[in-house]
Amino acid sequence: MKLKDIGEREIIKILSNHLEGKAAVGIGDDCAAIQFGENFLLLTTDMVTEELHLPKEMSPWQIGWFIAAINLSDIAAKGGKPIGMLLSMGIPRSMEIDFLEEIAKGANELMKNYGGIIGGDTKESSQITISGMAMGIMKREEFIPRKGARVGDVVCVTGSLGKAGAGLYALKKNLPNKMEMAKELLEPIPRIKEGIALASAGCATSSMDISDGLASSLHQLREINGIGFEIHWEKLPISRNAKIGDEKEFVLYCGGDYELLVTIKPDKLKKAVKAIESVGGKLTPIGKVVREGIYLVDKSKKREIIENRGYEHFR
Amino acid sequence: MKLKDIGEREIIKILSNHLEGKAAVGIGDDCAAIQFGENFLLLTTDMVTEELHLPKEMSPWQIGWFIAAINLSDIAAKGGKPIGMLLSMGIPRSMEIDFLEEIAKGANELMKNYGGIIGGDTKESSQITISGMAMGIMKREEFIPRKGARVGDVVCVTGSLGKAGAGLYALKKNLPNKMEMAKELLEPIPRIKEGIALASAGCATSSMDISDGLASSLHQLREINGIGFEIHWEKLPISRNAKIGDEKEFVLYCGGDYELLVTIKPDKLKKAVKAIESVGGKLTPIGKVVREGIYLVDKSKKREIIENRGYEHFR
Repeated sequence: MKLKDIGEREIIKILSNHLEGKAAVGIGDDCAAIQFGENFLLLTTDMVTEELHLPKEMSPWQIGWFIAAINLSDIAAKGGKPIGMLLSMGIPRSMEIDFLEEIAKGANELMKNYGGIIGGDTKESSQITISGMAMGIMKREEFIPRKGARVGDVVCVTGSLGKAGAGLYALKKNLPNKMEMAKELLEPIPRIKEGIALASAGCATSSMDISDGLASSLHQLREINGIGFEIHWEKLPISRNAKIGDEKEFVLYCGGDYELLVTIKPDKLKKAVKAIESVGGKLTPIGKVVREGIYLVDKSKKREIIENRGYEHFR
Repeated sequence: MKLKDIGEREIIKILSNHLEGKAAVGIGDDCAAIQFGENFLLLTTDMVTEELHLPKEMSPWQIGWFIAAINLSDIAAKGGKPIGMLLSMGIPRSMEIDFLEEIAKGANELMKNYGGIIGGDTKESSQITISGMAMGIMKREEFIPRKGARVGDVVCVTGSLGKAGAGLYALKKNLPNKMEMAKELLEPIPRIKEGIALASAGCATSSMDISDGLASSLHQLREINGIGFEIHWEKLPISRNAKIGDEKEFVLYCGGDYELLVTIKPDKLKKAVKAIESVGGKLTPIGKVVREGIYLVDKSKKREIIENRGYEHFR
């Protein structure tokens, strides 16, 4: 059997059967966590390759920003404070030095307030392949795992939805305003402040980022927690950009919105919203945790199933 | 100007001009180090690509072992204790699942006593590209930097030299006993115990691993420390395998021997040798730190210059 026959999430399950990791939190969450006295050290890695992740419109500065952002997003989802990053780069011999310098500048711009790029490796490769590894720190008891959601919890998301899908659509259709439309796709903002605020407020029962798409993330939380979701269409904070195409497709099934999907204890919802607002962010209740099934409910209370599809490698 | 015009070490210098890292030890040493109270957290990353690093004779189990070993070697060179690793893998869709499982098993075999593989990422890629990231911990005051060698210090290496060069030669020449000859090339043993013993004995003034070759490593230490080296040919612990070809080439100029090159205070040499022997290792004095130049001295005291060449990417 080949990798393409089973998909990324099944691959990770098979691999983890062979790995004897001794971390407090291991494979299956956004970050690994190692206990250091009262603290957790968070560790995560994300790789991008030219052919899959880097649209030709992406500038080298944006490539650097992007690899830093997608790694920090995993730290953010747990509520950690980033303290540094390593960059491992496979790059072609024929690359201009300027191009590589721009990658470094873009990564530095995001990381300079979070410990910076403190090390790395450069190797020759026929195509650009960059692996980032981010470290974060947080109080152990504040860590927000993927597992913890309970029936009755309020489901919330940070920021807005559908902007990445709309951006990719604008690039593919070569729309006149494509670069403006694609800005949030190419330069995502990891929700660090929001994650830290949520963690210290102690309101969240589970959290993950929705880089694979909202639908896919709901299905992943469902599987881990053995619960279901009821999501209300009219409550979703949809980006105005999403109006250029199939809104539902952009909001539910496209990856690339680096927002946080969190479940909140019902009596803590106000506190959570305030905590996020106090750092300049936005937290929107979009539904609730139910016993089973994953449904989208519209204004007229019509229910439809949210499918288990989104971005998955090797599919 | 393109990357191939300047080589890996110059590339890293240019990149580091754009990076505002806030680590206690940053770019330019084997590992980055972040201070945690009395301790240093060590972080390092190393990437391998199919076309450059993975001879066709290497089994998938050996690929896994190899990526773990070369990352641990950087932790070992500073005297740290590894506490875990992340693996980021770019892999072809058409790869058999068995093949990937063997990679995981090989990496796990080495890492299981050092915190294990605690996380990672898998992405599609046209060729195998694997980036490992290792974490280690050690007392801050025991960290052995690259910078610190002083004139009069004794130069030492762990283990034996030339085995990787001889192994690669055997593979290229397709010798009948090539797999036996190449075992130490394909399954290098990182000198973790030796590094920890040296660090806690407090005898070393500088250290790095010689993965790029002994000559290249001497030149790198020369540049950082502003000193020189006198190396005695007859003292070098040459692997018996090296007799199959050009011994001097294998010992000085071939990369892939994951041994440690350390400088030791002269009055601490006995203590250092004993510390390494007490953990079952070997430390051999091979020369001394001098004011300038890097020379190889033979039995008849004839001196020749050790050239600044070895393995360097983008060259």
